[in-house]
Amino acid sequence: MANILKKVSWSSKDDDGGGEVNEATSLVGSRRGSGASVAGKRNSRSRFLSSSGFRTVDLTDGDGISEEILESQEVFTSPRPKEIPHSENLLSQKYESLDYDNCENQLFLEEEHNLGVKRVKFMEAGRWTVCMAIGILTALVACVIDIVIEQLAGLKYKILKQYIDTFTADGGLSVSMVIWAAMNAGIVMVGSILVAFGEPVAAGSGIPQIKCYLNGVKIPHVVRLKTLVVKVLGVICSVAGGLAVGKEGPMIHSGAVIAAGVSQGRSTTLKKDFKVLEYFRRDTEKRDFVSAGAAAGVSAAFGAPVGGVLFSLEEGASFWNQYLTWRIFFASVISTFTLNFVLSWYHNHLGELSYPGLINFGAFESTGIAYYIYEIPLFLIMGVFGGLLGALFNFLNYWLTVLRIRYIHRPAQQVLEAMLVATVTAVVSFTMIYFSNDCQPLGEDKSADYTLQLFCNDGEYNSMATTFFNTPEKSVRSLFHDPPGTYNPVTLGLFCLSYFLVACWTYGLAVSSGVFIPSLLLGAAWGRLFGIFLSYMSKGAWADPGKYALMGAAAQLGGIVRMTLSLTVILVEATGNVSYGLPIMLVLMMAKWVGDFCFEGLYDIHIKLQSVPFMGWEPPATSHSLTASEVMSHPVVCFKRFEQVGRIVDILSDNTANHNGFPVVEEGENVVNVNEQGDADDFGKLRGLMLRSQLIVLLKHKAFMERSDVGEPRHRLTLKDFRDAYPRFPPIQSIHVSEEERECTVDLSSYMNPTPYTVPQEASLHRIFKLFRALGLRHLVVCNGDNRVIGLVTRKDLARYRYHKGGLEEVPLTQT
Amino acid sequence: MANILKKVSWSSKDDDGGGEVNEATSLVGSRRGSGASVAGKRNSRSRFLSSSGFRTVDLTDGDGISEEILESQEVFTSPRPKEIPHSENLLSQKYESLDYDNCENQLFLEEEHNLGVKRVKFMEAGRWTVCMAIGILTALVACVIDIVIEQLAGLKYKILKQYIDTFTADGGLSVSMVIWAAMNAGIVMVGSILVAFGEPVAAGSGIPQIKCYLNGVKIPHVVRLKTLVVKVLGVICSVAGGLAVGKEGPMIHSGAVIAAGVSQGRSTTLKKDFKVLEYFRRDTEKRDFVSAGAAAGVSAAFGAPVGGVLFSLEEGASFWNQYLTWRIFFASVISTFTLNFVLSWYHNHLGELSYPGLINFGAFESTGIAYYIYEIPLFLIMGVFGGLLGALFNFLNYWLTVLRIRYIHRPAQQVLEAMLVATVTAVVSFTMIYFSNDCQPLGEDKSADYTLQLFCNDGEYNSMATTFFNTPEKSVRSLFHDPPGTYNPVTLGLFCLSYFLVACWTYGLAVSSGVFIPSLLLGAAWGRLFGIFLSYMSKGAWADPGKYALMGAAAQLGGIVRMTLSLTVILVEATGNVSYGLPIMLVLMMAKWVGDFCFEGLYDIHIKLQSVPFMGWEPPATSHSLTASEVMSHPVVCFKRFEQVGRIVDILSDNTANHNGFPVVEEGENVVNVNEQGDADDFGKLRGLMLRSQLIVLLKHKAFMERSDVGEPRHRLTLKDFRDAYPRFPPIQSIHVSEEERECTVDLSSYMNPTPYTVPQEASLHRIFKLFRALGLRHLVVCNGDNRVIGLVTRKDLARYRYHKGGLEEVPLTQT
Repeated sequence: MANILKKVSWSSKDDDGGGEVNEATSLVGSRRGSGASVAGKRNSRSRFLSSSGFRTVDLTDGDGISEEILESQEVFTSPRPKEIPHSENLLSQKYESLDYDNCENQLFLEEEHNLGVKRVKFMEAGRWTVCMAIGILTALVACVIDIVIEQLAGLKYKILKQYIDTFTADGGLSVSMVIWAAMNAGIVMVGSILVAFGEPVAAGSGIPQIKCYLNGVKIPHVVRLKTLVVKVLGVICSVAGGLAVGKEGPMIHSGAVIAAGVSQGRSTTLKKDFKVLEYFRRDTEKRDFVSAGAAAGVSAAFGAPVGGVLFSLEEGASFWNQYLTWRIFFASVISTFTLNFVLSWYHNHLGELSYPGLINFGAFESTGIAYYIYEIPLFLIMGVFGGLLGALFNFLNYWLTVLRIRYIHRPAQQVLEAMLVATVTAVVSFTMIYFSNDCQPLGEDKSADYTLQLFCNDGEYNSMATTFFNTPEKSVRSLFHDPPGTYNPVTLGLFCLSYFLVACWTYGLAVSSGVFIPSLLLGAAWGRLFGIFLSYMSKGAWADPGKYALMGAAAQLGGIVRMTLSLTVILVEATGNVSYGLPIMLVLMMAKWVGDFCFEGLYDIHIKLQSVPFMGWEPPATSHSLTASEVMSHPVVCFKRFEQVGRIVDILSDNTANHNGFPVVEEGENVVNVNEQGDADDFGKLRGLMLRSQLIVLLKHKAFMERSDVGEPRHRLTLKDFRDAYPRFPPIQSIHVSEEERECTVDLSSYMNPTPYTVPQEASLHRIFKLFRALGLRHLVVCNGDNRVIGLVTRKDLARYRYHKGGLEEVPLTQT
Repeated sequence: MANILKKVSWSSKDDDGGGEVNEATSLVGSRRGSGASVAGKRNSRSRFLSSSGFRTVDLTDGDGISEEILESQEVFTSPRPKEIPHSENLLSQKYESLDYDNCENQLFLEEEHNLGVKRVKFMEAGRWTVCMAIGILTALVACVIDIVIEQLAGLKYKILKQYIDTFTADGGLSVSMVIWAAMNAGIVMVGSILVAFGEPVAAGSGIPQIKCYLNGVKIPHVVRLKTLVVKVLGVICSVAGGLAVGKEGPMIHSGAVIAAGVSQGRSTTLKKDFKVLEYFRRDTEKRDFVSAGAAAGVSAAFGAPVGGVLFSLEEGASFWNQYLTWRIFFASVISTFTLNFVLSWYHNHLGELSYPGLINFGAFESTGIAYYIYEIPLFLIMGVFGGLLGALFNFLNYWLTVLRIRYIHRPAQQVLEAMLVATVTAVVSFTMIYFSNDCQPLGEDKSADYTLQLFCNDGEYNSMATTFFNTPEKSVRSLFHDPPGTYNPVTLGLFCLSYFLVACWTYGLAVSSGVFIPSLLLGAAWGRLFGIFLSYMSKGAWADPGKYALMGAAAQLGGIVRMTLSLTVILVEATGNVSYGLPIMLVLMMAKWVGDFCFEGLYDIHIKLQSVPFMGWEPPATSHSLTASEVMSHPVVCFKRFEQVGRIVDILSDNTANHNGFPVVEEGENVVNVNEQGDADDFGKLRGLMLRSQLIVLLKHKAFMERSDVGEPRHRLTLKDFRDAYPRFPPIQSIHVSEEERECTVDLSSYMNPTPYTVPQEASLHRIFKLFRALGLRHLVVCNGDNRVIGLVTRKDLARYRYHKGGLEEVPLTQT
């Protein structure tokens, strides 16, 4: 056990960012009283794997932990606490930011200057080619998932049907149940072990993680090859294991990983560098490709290329650029086309292109009138209901997640929980099948493949069993399209209730799982129920429950995930029918409004529970009253343009202040050391900004000059040196600097960003936020009227302020 | 004639921006050699109304023209030149910028500070309400246009049919032709007079103008009530007059005007202030509503709410904000819903909601397979063809526009040209009808209403006549849906050729006209022809020419306007069929690529020909080598915090340097006057930024203090004073300042923006561009290392640099 735990335990050395640990420059307990008060709750010796797939980092695995922190944590000296406090009202210092603003240092400018027109065109062509590769690969992964799951499901059904047929005759149905439950639990166990012990970040749908990535937060391991492998195998297991999950959400994450991998022209995990696409090895370019990958994932999952683009934009991007959007669109189109081609081939319909996505809702009849105007109020009521039910779902899932963070944080526990859920799901299903006598005649027009006779007469099948045995995708389709009278209302009602609880319990398990399909299925079920009720009330005048099933599905999904624009398009593209576009929009809007009024969206909950410094779309409404000087972190550690190696090493090794950005100030002026708590007036005039990662590369390559050297350094680094180290820069501890070398000097002038963005100290939080968000910054230097550095604003300094009922709320920072 | 000309002639006094004339602070002939060399071409005494609806401003109506400029223009002293040079390689100084960055001065911060949580919510509710109003009103305007055109077309058809029936028997068809041509010319004349003499900016589709507005360029009169009225009446006349135009493009402009009007809670034209929504009286808020209006316009025109949102984003916005997008989406949904409701009511189908947009392509059969994979190469070929044809269209239209700018710049000429085109269109149509003997049996399945028998046998009709007599919308529909064999290939080929030329001639006339429908019709015609050809080649195996008509329409439209994402969605929503989504995308992408390779998009051409300082999506590729100090305008006129009224008035009245932004610098330091050409070191330290408009309001309200006053000014202005003057600030000439008042001082500190964005002088053009574009700035102050002002970057300084084959190109500035 300890061995296994060690395997997944986390040290800063295998982090994507290497030694980069902490964006903020604030000192614990210095300016931030609130931060200090939280320290008591902090448990820095524990590691926990979050249930929603966020991997948390134990900073104190290193040996540089400060006395101060250790003192405040005496209470938690037991190596593994029983309870870990949840923390949706904290921001964690452990997440790093990505830098979506190019560092235009001298090296970069020289490279750009030498770039000919041809090279520019070549690079543009490269971007399109990479997008094409992303689309194709994402679609192929989707095909693999789809085909394997279908094969497994067919196999499972076959075995089970055999047992049921055998035992039903003898009346020993409980044996079938046990076999079924055991089979499901076994398959889920495999998936869960992979996730819990292999790569916890592959749990869940991955959508919150991708949202964070596009927002500019580095979630460790989120775009690694290993994550992709675990995700794909995991989702196959969880879907085949009969859990109430879908394979669509994970496709989005898979697409993003593929994009991050392909665009870099190498795999750091496999230690294989193809020496291509080196120009794209920086956060800005990578982000663009990751959004294309996410879009391609949606496109493959739902056959919705436009929906994919909108998803990428609505959920992720804070940037909008026509060219980029076209590339994203291209990746999406290629993705759905490839999937369509391969699946049509697989199903022997080559040439017909009838499989645009993993899920296909089937065409709604477009002949005749789609809906009447007097149905719109009914749709709106469904929207309200969907919003309420979605909020309830989110609320329950929130508490479950809190409980999981507190009590179920060991991988073994997580695997057991997943197996338990799989068993319960199987048992509940079976019990319901057993008690429902909902026999339906076997017709030609049924879209269900897996029909079970059970206690029904010959020529009939148990519709409840079908609902549970089918993959959720097929069940959704049945609910949309089966003719009126196919489902017994009581059966459907029971199904809704049980599936709601099971789905809510399932999301957040340590398995790869999407929440789209369960939501759609749930909504389709109660929507159809609503349709049946209407039909009953109107004595058959409203005879089409399928239409209401579609609206219910939209309402429920909207109520849970709270997307509107992209979801409308996804649903319209997946149903292949535009005529329901307007009511779907209205339903989604209503569900979003009602849902937002009651409780947050599911993804936002999971992001908040992980204390991610996520930046909203807009600055908090009442943030004009705060100024930069109140918001910023200070004092700041600055470097001189010619800096001593020893001082750099000391500062980088100082774990009490895990800075990642260091302003470079005017030569010859006083440079305040962070430990001296100097007066602001002592700071030098701003000349540039260095990143920790750049300094690490400098130290690693010993780009020093002797004291006696004047002018040129011994050897000057090129951009290639920095790109080769990206994104896994080694920690400072791994770099040996001799006593002699400590006396050397480094010339930072050609490596620093000479024109960092700055704000005056009087600038309002509102203004800083806009600048920061619009440009995707990582550090923003605050200067006084003389252009002297007085502070540094980072993501955490801004994300700390939230608009809460009654006004601005300051969220404390924590180091766990 | 002179009287009429005077009426539309333009002085800076009736400009939206009043005295604000010129963003750039550069002096003619100072730093910009290229600018000076252009001066020879400049004709500052002429006014011309552009054929594409841009109204150009004659700056020299004022009396402050500099000697230098006058000297260089001796050649052009004739009051009205025969020829005006076209200028796609110039940038005009006459266009002002909009300010999409809030001025967070003390007044604003105080207001924000006092805003309670309730008020914030109230304002948010206000935004949604305004969007709803925008949606409803846009839809109602669309309904009015649609219904009036339909009535007029019916009336015209009735009269004409009567004549034709009478005269055909006698063999005197030429009489019918004359009557028809005269009728068309008459109707078009009314529309053209309205546009040419009433409001030239209402010409064309208005899409380039809205693009400019959203980009941040103020096109005078573009969002005025008068423009809306002229636009609506104009488009009715031009469609009813049988021109090759559509009513869809103008709807986008109409929606934008409605949005700008509704959101301000007053009409400056009608001098009616409802004293509501005063908070929204600034460029930022107005822009958000205008994008919602444009989206609502698309939504009403095509029944495509999602397409509307995407149009707004793809064509206009450089900002992306989830909340804003949702509001835009809401306006779009409301718009299509209202239109649907009203039109269904009008057509006595109340409750069925079967009229989602002005144009309805009709449902494509979704039963069976939509297309085979081997058809995709064919679609791609169509895309290539569409791109080529689109480029040819644009190329011809470009030369036409150049000729129009040169020779047809008087309103009377423009009216005559419009009448000529109307006549030619009628004659060409008639001739073609005459010579084609394309008789088709009158069937039940035809979607055409207006059938003409002409020389055909009883029970048959002339299909060519139908194509010409129908509104283009109906013709498109016929081409999509009429069964194979409806159209004779020769007829169709002739129609393509003639319609191509006529449509190309038409776009750019001084009439309100959209290019969407002519493009679709043209494409549908050659697409169908292609389909017929395929069917012939394959001996009937490919029997559905309607599908190819759809692809042709997409290819042609894409080749002309070069949109991809939004156009895909618009076409999918308008056809009501998702199954053609993928091929439509591929076709559009292909058309765009091929088209872009050959020639620019139609809207971009018209924007360039008007010398608008339009900022692209991305900085030019090789722009890293230029720095702020090379790009910026300098020297800059600065003010002190306590500035003398006399100096302010003098500087504002100085027409040689029409500055709009003035840095405010440290008290007590030297402040360089622009006439002294001082050394950069003499500049003061930056303390804030004042706008011309703010200074004007200060002067108007005499917010001075005596020399003897210390501390408080006599009266302090409130934000309301500034909002009341927005957006039509009076020119400085209209403000009388007495000699005594000139000696007074103004305290600028509470009005200036204390935290303007700045860049260091070493920052690259690339970096400045990104900052400028992302935040929608109007002025960007360039400071040196001591935070002293050394220059100012404006839109024109950045838009001047274009990426041209071979590298960076610097476009000269001109004052015309």
